[in-house]
Amino acid sequence: MATAGKVIKCKAAVAWEAGKPLSIEEVDVAPPQAMEVRVKILFTALCHTDVYFWEAKGQTPVFPRIFGHEAGGIVESVGEGVTELAPGDHVLPVFTGECKECPHCKSAESNMCDLLRINTDRGVMLSDGQSRFSINGKPIFHFVGTSTFSEYTVMHVGCVAKINPEAPLDKVCVLSCGISTGLGATINVAKPRKGSTVAIFGLGAVGLAAAEGARISGASRIIGIDLNPNRFEEAKKFGCTEFINPKDHDKPVQQVLAEMTNGGVDRSVECTGNIHAMIQAFECVHDGWGVAVLVGVPHKDAEFKTHPMNFLNERTLKGTFFGNYKPRTDLPNVVEMYMKKELEVEKFITHSVPFSEINTAFDLMHRGEGIRCIIRMED
Amino acid sequence: MATAGKVIKCKAAVAWEAGKPLSIEEVDVAPPQAMEVRVKILFTALCHTDVYFWEAKGQTPVFPRIFGHEAGGIVESVGEGVTELAPGDHVLPVFTGECKECPHCKSAESNMCDLLRINTDRGVMLSDGQSRFSINGKPIFHFVGTSTFSEYTVMHVGCVAKINPEAPLDKVCVLSCGISTGLGATINVAKPRKGSTVAIFGLGAVGLAAAEGARISGASRIIGIDLNPNRFEEAKKFGCTEFINPKDHDKPVQQVLAEMTNGGVDRSVECTGNIHAMIQAFECVHDGWGVAVLVGVPHKDAEFKTHPMNFLNERTLKGTFFGNYKPRTDLPNVVEMYMKKELEVEKFITHSVPFSEINTAFDLMHRGEGIRCIIRMED
Repeated sequence: MATAGKVIKCKAAVAWEAGKPLSIEEVDVAPPQAMEVRVKILFTALCHTDVYFWEAKGQTPVFPRIFGHEAGGIVESVGEGVTELAPGDHVLPVFTGECKECPHCKSAESNMCDLLRINTDRGVMLSDGQSRFSINGKPIFHFVGTSTFSEYTVMHVGCVAKINPEAPLDKVCVLSCGISTGLGATINVAKPRKGSTVAIFGLGAVGLAAAEGARISGASRIIGIDLNPNRFEEAKKFGCTEFINPKDHDKPVQQVLAEMTNGGVDRSVECTGNIHAMIQAFECVHDGWGVAVLVGVPHKDAEFKTHPMNFLNERTLKGTFFGNYKPRTDLPNVVEMYMKKELEVEKFITHSVPFSEINTAFDLMHRGEGIRCIIRMED
Repeated sequence: MATAGKVIKCKAAVAWEAGKPLSIEEVDVAPPQAMEVRVKILFTALCHTDVYFWEAKGQTPVFPRIFGHEAGGIVESVGEGVTELAPGDHVLPVFTGECKECPHCKSAESNMCDLLRINTDRGVMLSDGQSRFSINGKPIFHFVGTSTFSEYTVMHVGCVAKINPEAPLDKVCVLSCGISTGLGATINVAKPRKGSTVAIFGLGAVGLAAAEGARISGASRIIGIDLNPNRFEEAKKFGCTEFINPKDHDKPVQQVLAEMTNGGVDRSVECTGNIHAMIQAFECVHDGWGVAVLVGVPHKDAEFKTHPMNFLNERTLKGTFFGNYKPRTDLPNVVEMYMKKELEVEKFITHSVPFSEINTAFDLMHRGEGIRCIIRMED
């Protein structure tokens, strides 16, 4: 490509300070260095994690910064040593990576890459500690190695999944974070059997994706639990057959679920990060075979407490990170699930805005409206 | 048999009151009723659980009672409706059962039979609420449905595993409780891969059996943890390659293990029931793939506490009951493991006494000497 090896000037949505609306600016995007790729982003979506670090309440503030990590794009150029990707490849950026060489990557059981595991404090590239973004020579920081709120971005090759070029990027872009996280939590970790009963705690994007995973697995009862009853109607599209609003009951949710299911659910998936919901999600599974999976990220001071007999009675508690998917190895297969019409992605996409209106996506998320808002970079 | 349908008079070791030496008495053993079998016990062993309920410190006292649940024998006669067993069959009595009809028995994942799950308070048979043992017409109570400290005993058919008649009962009798519990915890639940590192908390009979399971699974490092260093030498026979005495360290055992293993062990098995050891056993497994299995029974007021991020970082915590073996379906295969010389049973048997000296077995256990003491009923 004509731009390879050169600085690209393009538009990016810059967060100059915590909580202030993003501002579309012209930025310089340096060429990719060794083991890096530069990607033209076509579609990106907004995820809670962007908002969380943009608000920077209690988090390390790293500004000015380009947020964004759920996206789809096309490789523009590659740096030295990159052999698995070439210009023109369709890709999904991922907030966590897969180096393929560390003990985690070599383990069939883990996706928590030692080298490229999510790092929310680092705003620079791994190789040289520098940012590839600048305005008038002053660095603009990266976010979780992706920074997809920019027409072009530079990423470590380990954080880029090559996918089927026939897959529509305006749809599959949402598979690069939350949807895969919830889906994998159910399919890869909880592994419900056909005909089983699954409880989903929290009906946001991740929880709905967990429900979708239960639907795909053939669960016959999928019980959604949320404090917001407005989510129940929407959740039916994702396979939820029953609902519990904990506010409607005097007794603990565990007990409500035990009574509904003759002793407990077969599987549960916790997608809120609330410590009480975590304990409920564990204690609501049936003795003998119940498996509970934690997905939601807890408060740093949270403490998980339960009576150990709940374990001894043959319950299992597991946690998962990114649905146990290895980004480069497994994401292409998630895209294929969509291509084969097993996984329904469209229903997660409730809004779409041009890049110039990116702040609207933040407003929608603040108001709790919709599930995913696609930001069209080329509009 | 000539005795079928009749009361049998035989010797039994009766516990007249809590903590007092057992007394060998002549007891009447009534014929088996519907779905029951009467078994001639040839060899029995003493397990901590017998001692625990005999001491009855805080447990419901049920006296006079015939203890014993780890044993091997031969079916003398069967009650109405029993089709799976016949006189002459070699069997292992089991303290928990398998009715083959409840949701737990029908689940491939559970062995916690609804009908015949261990019940330490009940001293009578399920069918009619009566004891089959008596002296001068006064009932002597059963213990966990087995009461093997008697030359003859009556059990529900669901608590009797039929085994290979070629298997030496003086050896395989120890497979009916503790050894299978530890072995199954590792082989069926922790499932270490070949070449992996396994930590075993507590090197009593159950812990040594868990180590034996790790050895059979091909673990290359088996780290035993015990406060009693006298157990370390013995544990080498069961595959332990390294030892930690927590008293030798100022830092938590989790940290000692993490330093020894580059971040944590692949699997851990907790066989003490101490709540602190349970938490250590969970926190010492490696992120990404570590699995901890709880076996030891905790105090009723114990509380398991940990930071939920320990789960989110892809650790798994499971509990097991009787090593997840279904008594009737799976125990015969454990016996076959011994027959094929995969499982080494002899090394668990450190003592042997005639029935008349059964109290010696209690003394040995109190002094913490040896692993299993076989009681020879016919001597």
